[in-house]
Amino acid sequence: MRARDLATPFPTVSVDEDVFTAARMMATEHKPGLIVCDPDGRPYTVLPGSQVLNFLIPRYVQEQPALARAFDERASDELRDKLVRHTVRDVLPQPADLDELPIVDADATTIEIAAVMARMHSPLVAVVDSEDRVLGAITVSQLLNYLLPA
Amino acid sequence: MRARDLATPFPTVSVDEDVFTAARMMATEHKPGLIVCDPDGRPYTVLPGSQVLNFLIPRYVQEQPALARAFDERASDELRDKLVRHTVRDVLPQPADLDELPIVDADATTIEIAAVMARMHSPLVAVVDSEDRVLGAITVSQLLNYLLPA
Repeated sequence: MRARDLATPFPTVSVDEDVFTAARMMATEHKPGLIVCDPDGRPYTVLPGSQVLNFLIPRYVQEQPALARAFDERASDELRDKLVRHTVRDVLPQPADLDELPIVDADATTIEIAAVMARMHSPLVAVVDSEDRVLGAITVSQLLNYLLPA
Repeated sequence: MRARDLATPFPTVSVDEDVFTAARMMATEHKPGLIVCDPDGRPYTVLPGSQVLNFLIPRYVQEQPALARAFDERASDELRDKLVRHTVRDVLPQPADLDELPIVDADATTIEIAAVMARMHSPLVAVVDSEDRVLGAITVSQLLNYLLPA
């Protein structure tokens, strides 16, 4: 079994897309994050949903639960506007903190995939073809299901 | 909207359960990890699927892709046996590296939930009642869907 056989479609987003579109994609696809591609369509990093929330919720609110409770009264329209006005690039962590995206070639074996997930503590690997285009992704639950059949 | 209204069932596992059972639960429930409870049933940490792979795949194989390809030839029965013979407690990271489990009370507001996810960079929070029993969990995609309706 090779990576190309296990890969399933996974949502990708360009660094130039607006954050609202990215956040809605996570919501409708039930994903904890998206694969972010550079303008040439090559995978670049991941945008975790928690990073979108980190951008939405001011730092002083994050650190003061009492303020968070008060903040709840505000209209969600404000949150939406903030996301529409910014691109994915704007909300990514600083380059030094960017998550390295776990990537495997289409012909990686299941143990190679497991080794990459284990080393990078990742619940997901992106699978790319020989031109670095994203074929899909493999989740740790899919891989465990294959390695450890019932 | 409060945490109790957004929480949905999420699989939990005891620290004393064997790792094979835990890994199969991730596989069948399509989860990237499980909530680990102490023997009293209180939430304690998370067991990421990548940690199970980290335990399965020897370090020298993780660091040498060529060895990973050779390792693939081995029977998966060996992997299963290794997991059956160990408990979740055995494969958790060292105490200093344990993931702090993001937890909110049942009456936390959506902004409080968002603040916890943002601060802890977590795709998930556990929701507990007043006796620290797990009512369920909230994923970042569920929360984004509520905060940012289409």
